[in-house]
Amino acid sequence: MFRRHAAGVAIITVNHNGVPFGFTATSVASLSAKPPRFTFNMARTSSSWPAVANATYIGVHMLGLENQELAERFARTRDRFDGDHWEPGPHGVPILKDVAGWLIGKVQMRLSFENNAVVVVEVVAGRVGDDGTPLLYHSGAYSRSAPLDYEI
Amino acid sequence: MFRRHAAGVAIITVNHNGVPFGFTATSVASLSAKPPRFTFNMARTSSSWPAVANATYIGVHMLGLENQELAERFARTRDRFDGDHWEPGPHGVPILKDVAGWLIGKVQMRLSFENNAVVVVEVVAGRVGDDGTPLLYHSGAYSRSAPLDYEI
Repeated sequence: MFRRHAAGVAIITVNHNGVPFGFTATSVASLSAKPPRFTFNMARTSSSWPAVANATYIGVHMLGLENQELAERFARTRDRFDGDHWEPGPHGVPILKDVAGWLIGKVQMRLSFENNAVVVVEVVAGRVGDDGTPLLYHSGAYSRSAPLDYEI
Repeated sequence: MFRRHAAGVAIITVNHNGVPFGFTATSVASLSAKPPRFTFNMARTSSSWPAVANATYIGVHMLGLENQELAERFARTRDRFDGDHWEPGPHGVPILKDVAGWLIGKVQMRLSFENNAVVVVEVVAGRVGDDGTPLLYHSGAYSRSAPLDYEI
């Protein structure tokens, strides 16, 4: 029923007692510009929930067209951090390389609602990569953004 | 700093004591599939906040490429409901015509966080329109979705 809504694709990362956790999310949404805050939603049955539930800082990575493999990797169940596609960043948060942009945020609030949670985050650091085309998720598949006046 | 995140564009509507309220939102995010729940974020300084703060039911309209004028209308400060582009729907919620899809939801929770609010909604009714191309907002401008393999 929600398939008609298009969403940007992000990867959330957390350092939990020295172990990196992360998952692909399509629920990242801006909450306010000043101060810069955003929310994301997740299932509390997720393998990353214990890490998010205990985290002070989390990372959010905005994905571009060229990051589809990364999106798929962090939607699988294993091997998400096997490789040199990431490195420890500020506050020990795992940072993924070659993404459209990343932000480090301090968790302000976690609202558990039955089996799901809404997490409120305030941005404390970040870096925007080269200009690029955002990766989207829509109607159960990845897609890309394009100029409005472009006829396909 | 959040410009790199692409978002689907929606219009939220509410009936407040017989008066229709509504606004363009880029913060609609899925919370769970079963039951179907979503969240949206808004400023409590918005002219629509008193209506949302008191609503039992709200409407969310997913916008397509052809709905850019509607998105701009509901981002302006006046004349949002002047015309025959809407009609009262289930539970009195204003329903906009010719959109990609709309849902009626029952408000489950409102979380006020300083000057902003997160609203949790459970879907109770809806209709999906003709298949189409979603309208997006990215880097301060409207854009559209396109197939991944399309080179521009």
